[in-house]
Formats: sequence, C-alpha cells, structure tokens
Amino acid sequence: MKILFDQIALMYEDGHTESNMYLAVENETISYIGKNKPFGAFDRIISGKDKLLMPGFYNCHTHTPMTLFRGYAENLTLSKWLHEKIFPAEDKLYPQAVSIATLLSTAEMIKNGTVAFSDMYFFCEDIIEATVASGLKANISRSTVAFDPNITEKTDDRFKESIKLYEKYHNYANGRIKIDMSIHAEYSTVPASCHYISDYALDKGLPIHIHLSETKDEHMACIEKYGVTPTQFFEKNGLFRVPVIAAHCVHLTDDDMKIMAANGATAVHNPASNLKLGSGVARLENLLAANINVTLGTDGAASNNTLDIMKEAYLAAILQKGITGKTDSMQSGTFVRMLTENGAKMQGRVDCGKLAVGAKADLVMLDFDMVHVMPIYHYCDAFLYSANSSNVVMTMVDGNILYENGEYMTLDIEQIKFQFRQVTKNYFDR
Amino acid sequence: MKILFDQIALMYEDGHTESNMYLAVENETISYIGKNKPFGAFDRIISGKDKLLMPGFYNCHTHTPMTLFRGYAENLTLSKWLHEKIFPAEDKLYPQAVSIATLLSTAEMIKNGTVAFSDMYFFCEDIIEATVASGLKANISRSTVAFDPNITEKTDDRFKESIKLYEKYHNYANGRIKIDMSIHAEYSTVPASCHYISDYALDKGLPIHIHLSETKDEHMACIEKYGVTPTQFFEKNGLFRVPVIAAHCVHLTDDDMKIMAANGATAVHNPASNLKLGSGVARLENLLAANINVTLGTDGAASNNTLDIMKEAYLAAILQKGITGKTDSMQSGTFVRMLTENGAKMQGRVDCGKLAVGAKADLVMLDFDMVHVMPIYHYCDAFLYSANSSNVVMTMVDGNILYENGEYMTLDIEQIKFQFRQVTKNYFDR
Repeated sequence: MKILFDQIALMYEDGHTESNMYLAVENETISYIGKNKPFGAFDRIISGKDKLLMPGFYNCHTHTPMTLFRGYAENLTLSKWLHEKIFPAEDKLYPQAVSIATLLSTAEMIKNGTVAFSDMYFFCEDIIEATVASGLKANISRSTVAFDPNITEKTDDRFKESIKLYEKYHNYANGRIKIDMSIHAEYSTVPASCHYISDYALDKGLPIHIHLSETKDEHMACIEKYGVTPTQFFEKNGLFRVPVIAAHCVHLTDDDMKIMAANGATAVHNPASNLKLGSGVARLENLLAANINVTLGTDGAASNNTLDIMKEAYLAAILQKGITGKTDSMQSGTFVRMLTENGAKMQGRVDCGKLAVGAKADLVMLDFDMVHVMPIYHYCDAFLYSANSSNVVMTMVDGNILYENGEYMTLDIEQIKFQFRQVTKNYFDR
Repeated sequence: MKILFDQIALMYEDGHTESNMYLAVENETISYIGKNKPFGAFDRIISGKDKLLMPGFYNCHTHTPMTLFRGYAENLTLSKWLHEKIFPAEDKLYPQAVSIATLLSTAEMIKNGTVAFSDMYFFCEDIIEATVASGLKANISRSTVAFDPNITEKTDDRFKESIKLYEKYHNYANGRIKIDMSIHAEYSTVPASCHYISDYALDKGLPIHIHLSETKDEHMACIEKYGVTPTQFFEKNGLFRVPVIAAHCVHLTDDDMKIMAANGATAVHNPASNLKLGSGVARLENLLAANINVTLGTDGAASNNTLDIMKEAYLAAILQKGITGKTDSMQSGTFVRMLTENGAKMQGRVDCGKLAVGAKADLVMLDFDMVHVMPIYHYCDAFLYSANSSNVVMTMVDGNILYENGEYMTLDIEQIKFQFRQVTKNYFDR
C-alpha cells in the first residue's frame, strides 16, 4: 500500500513545521518527505489542504479498562474514591468486561490521535488482545503489589504472571505489543519484591513502570517508614539499574530528580489526574531542567475522565505558566516532543515518534479549517493552545489508517458501544 | 414555531437531571416541561435519544474581536505580550476587521453551546451588529481608560461613546443586546472617571464591567499608590453602588470579597487566561463561600486561546481540587450554575439561564452517545468531567436554532472563514 500526503503542512517531533510538503508512506514506513512531488504510482493520494500531519501521540500512563469506572466516583476525597469506590469496583472485574472496556478505550484514544499507550493493570491478556484488534501499539505491564516482606519470586503470583506475559507477548503483533515489568508503588511493595523484579528486568532489558510520589502523604509516609524518599527507596532496592517509567512524580525532591536523570528514567506527567485527585502539580520545568525524559499520560478514566492526551499537553503547558508565573520559559515544541518522540523513547521504539524517512508511519492528521483554531500564525502554538482532539481527522499506525473523519477502520464501534453499555449497566449488580 | 424535545434527559441550572422528559418550546419561550407527552401539534419533534438538554452557557468576560490575535503572541512575558504584541496589534484595528472577527467568534461560541456573552472592548457598534446577525445575546461595554486626573465627563470621549451606545442599543434586537458601562481597570483609570461613570450607571441602573486584581503586580502597585486594594479603590470611588462585574479576581483579599458580596458584585473566573498569562489561580472556593455571584469567562482569544466556556468550567473544577487539595468540597452542579443561572443574573436577564416554563428558550443539546463520555453514572458529573464542546449538537436562543449538527442557521460560515482569512493575512502589513 502506497499513500501520498499531498501538499500538506508537516509538524516534526520538535514542533517545527514546513508547509506545502509531500510525505509518502509505503507499507509500514515513511518512504519520502520532501518539497517536490515524488515519482511513482500511489494507491491513494490524500489532500493536505488546511491539514497538519505530525507524529502520532503517546499516552504514557494509563489503566485502559478503567473507562468502566469513568464518572463512577466523583468529588470525593482520595481515600473514599479509592477504598470505598474504585477498589470494590475493581474487585468485580471479569475478562469480558476488561476486553470490551479496552476496546472502547482504544476507540477513544484512536479518535484523539493516540498511536501508542503504556498500561499498568491486570487481566493483561484481555487488554492485549483488544489492543491488537484495535491496531494500536502498547507497552503492557502487569501491576504487581507485595505486602509480605518474605515474599519470593516463587510465591509472587503477579510476578509469575508478568513473566508469562513477557514470554508470550513481548514483541507480539509485529512488535506493536511490548511487555514492561511493573511495581505498583513504594507503598504497595516490599524491598524483596523490588530486587527480584528488577533482577529479571535487568536480565531481559525491560523497563519497570511504577507510580512515584503521586501524593504528599505517600511521599512523607515513605520518609517516615524508611528514612528515604520513594525514589531513594527504589534506587536502594535495585530499580534504577533499568529504565524506570515513573508516573506522576508530583512530589519529587531535587535529589530525586538527579537520581532519575542519572539513570535514564522517564517521568510521566499526568496533570489532569493530579489536579482532579487533589495531588497537586508536578514541577515540570524542574524535571526538564534536570534532563529527565518527560512524557504525558492521562492516567485511568476514573480519575481524568478522558483518555485525551492532547488535553494533557494543553494542561501541562498552561499549568506550568500559571503555577510558576514564568510564561516565557517553555516553548510549544517542548510539549510536542513529550507527546511524540519522548514517548517512543520511553517505550523503546527507536524507529517511532518522529517524521523521518524509514521511521514507522505512526501519524496523526489534524484539520485546521475549524473556527476555533483560526487564524494560524504558528502551527505549533495553534496546535498546543487552540486545537483539541476534535481537530483530529486521521490516525495511522504502521501505515494502516485506523480512523478517518469519524469512521473506524479496525473497530465495529456501534457493536462496541452496545456491548459496553450492556456491561456497565449490570456491572455493579452482579 | 412549536418544537418538542421528545423523551430527553434534562439538566437543570443546579445540575440535577431528570430522564425521559418532554420539553416544549413555543416561539421564544419554554412552554412545557413534564413527564408526559404534551397534547397539540408541533412544527418539529426532536428525538432525545442519548441526548442531554440544558440551559445554554454564558461566557461572562471576553473581548470578542480578539480572535484576530489568536495565537499571535505566545510564550512571552505578560509585559512583552501586552506592550510589544497586543497593544500595537490593536492599534491597527478597523471596523471591517472587528466585524468579521466578531462573526467568527460568535460562530465558535455558538458551536460550543454559548447563548450569551459579556464583552468589554471598542468598535462596539461593529461588535453589536455582528452579534445581532449571529442571533446570540450579549451585554456589550465600551472599555474606558483615563490617565488625566482632571478628566471630566465632558472631556472623556470613551465615556461619551458609552452613553451613545446605551442610548442607541440598550435592549436592542428584542432585548438580546444590553449595554453595560465599563472601566478597564484600576491601573488604567482615575478617581474622577470612576465617579461620573458610576453616577451614570446608578442613574440608568447599569452594571459596570471591570478587570480586577488580575495580577499580583497590579494589586500591589495599587496598594503602594493609593494605600488600598483595587477593590477598596473602586468602593471609595463609587463603583459598588451598582452591580460590579469583576473579571479575574485572582488576588482579592478576604476583605475585598466581603465588599464584593455586600454589594451584589459578580466575580468572573477566567482560569485558562489566568494560567496562560501567569497570573495565578483565583480562590474559587473562597469567592463562593463569601456568597459572591461567580460566573465563568474565556477572556479574549489572544490569551486563552479559545472561546470554549465548557473548557473553563472543567478547568475551574479540577484546579479547585488540585490547588486546595480538597476534592470533596465542591459538587459538579455548582459549576453548572456558574455556566447558566449565575451568568443570566449577572447580565440582568431574569427570565434566562434556567429550565422553567415561561423562561426564554436558550438551550443547548449535547450528544452523550460518544465514546469519551461513556458510561453515564451521573449526567452532571459526566457533563463536567468527561464531555467537552464536541458533544454540543444544538444551540438555541430565544427559541431559534442557531446551530445543529455542525450546521449554522444564521451564519454563512464558509464566507466568514474566507473573509476572516483575508483580513488576518494582510492585517499586520497595512
């Protein structure tokens, strides 16, 4: 399959743009980028009139099936939200519910220009099969928890599940699926578990996905319990020997950031979830100044409530200005990088997240002929501050169009919505 | 014209909802609300399947023609943004540019479910005529500034312009247009001007629209200059004898809030603009606890960058939680009131902003059969946290449908976009 984007504005992973360009896709990859129309025949030529083409987005921290609980627990304290609503709701999970919820979530992400996501949850096989059906890329991790200090790799069923996942699904579906290791959080693990999981990750060359210093309370409780911050706890117990994917990072100290940076960790910024759950605002500028790889995540739909990663980029940008008062210290391209290249780097996908010949054709096309984005003085600023996910008109992964002008190519969306409604209607009555 | 909304979910101005309801509109007003289908013939019956019908939204502080400068000045300090970019750009304004920009802005607001806005700017006649053409309601005010301490009502041309506007346009277009008085801000006026403008407003029964304590710097400079806060300055100089519409209110003291509350003032919360310009976050919970009428505004598109009032409600809600850490202190219905009834109250429209028989049929209909809002446990929460302006499928003002499923009924949108592009293309070269 050969597709040509014809006289289109291109936005690269650093936010710089070029107008009236040609970009060709051949099978899975970008085969041409240039100012002149390439020779040869194409199966399809897509007009670039009023359109912007850019690398697709990475949602770097989510719990995909939690769309089941979107709007289920609102305006509560974090403790009530978690203990009285979310934990009991998760206790009722079953494979078919996870499967249909994942399908709905992928439909939402695809519509919003997402090409890849990183998930931490359970029922991972169901998540994977639904994701593969959608055509998206994903790094999937089985969330592990451990409370017994004497736990071993032989008694840790969740870790054993992680290993099985790795053996069965790592680089599955032509590499679209990868398996990461995961430790839920400092407050839900023990040192022993950190050691054998990070030993395994080191051996296999896998990242470890964790929640890190999301709330002030958990951060302070760790200092009280262990005399060190959660980041120092994980460092002490072996995690930073591998690339750590740390979600939230709201309450990191400057020293924590140094540990992250020195060890090639990624901080996943989740501004909507952190605000909505009352956790605060991560120090984005400091994370970047420390040379940490920073990406963006929506978190699960129970705390966001959407899987709209463009909204996260917008929130990240205006929050940084509003909280620090420094309105000129970050440029818009920085946020494009977080959405694209930094995500691909975090997921270990070296040939993704960028516009370059030979890179995977993971692309999103946005319509700029809409009243809320006019006029366009600079595409990158217009993209970040004026556009939103309603501007997305096409999402492509590995050269396959997954979504175009409201139509899904891989998903039977009416069937998915119908089944999702059936499942959620009876979910709490079972 | 008689229209029936058939078996639809209704959300009232306080956020409570009723499903499977009937709502009839006859000419300008809501003529029936009930659980049973009303008798009689209708010109049109609109299916309520998967839809939510609610009072339309009020954008209570904007500078409508500033869509001309959307994205023109990004990632700058406030001072550079204003003095090097926005002021020189505004110096080049001319009537046709204001007219076409206002038309584009009304198209954006209509698409986002807005039924009424409050504007403070200049070239007001052009703003008014474009607004009337769109079918929206608006309270328009001519921004006045004064730097000469000896200014009088005879030498103040902007005030004279305000009077002319009042005489020509107050209650124009069947009452859809109202004229408010305006004083730009404490730092751009003098006591003399406050006195004769508030005398006039008192005599005519008009509100005065101002910017108030938007930035820390202006707040502190006022204390240094006059020994009082901007709110106290305005109180001393007569403004609070009339209903004051105070935009921003980011740095109000507790005493300032008492003055506002005691005098029936309205605080317009502009969270996006306040973040993006680095001004901070208004203390929303305190404003409400002080019993101040609180509404929402987008501010102009040069600092937002959209005129999407649903986004403001969402931002207001998650910011309040994130900044205070109190996630259970405000319920979703509070934000629905800010969007609807509180706005109508601020604009002096007693028969608007609510679902009630006899009230004006200013309505917005949202589609909830969209993947990013499913499932619906509570409509009000789903509306606030999951939905966005892409859910809006119909906007009605005074019983006239202005927008439905992407189509505009009052505006030639392709012509407007074409002319807007022409104007902005050459704007800075003149």
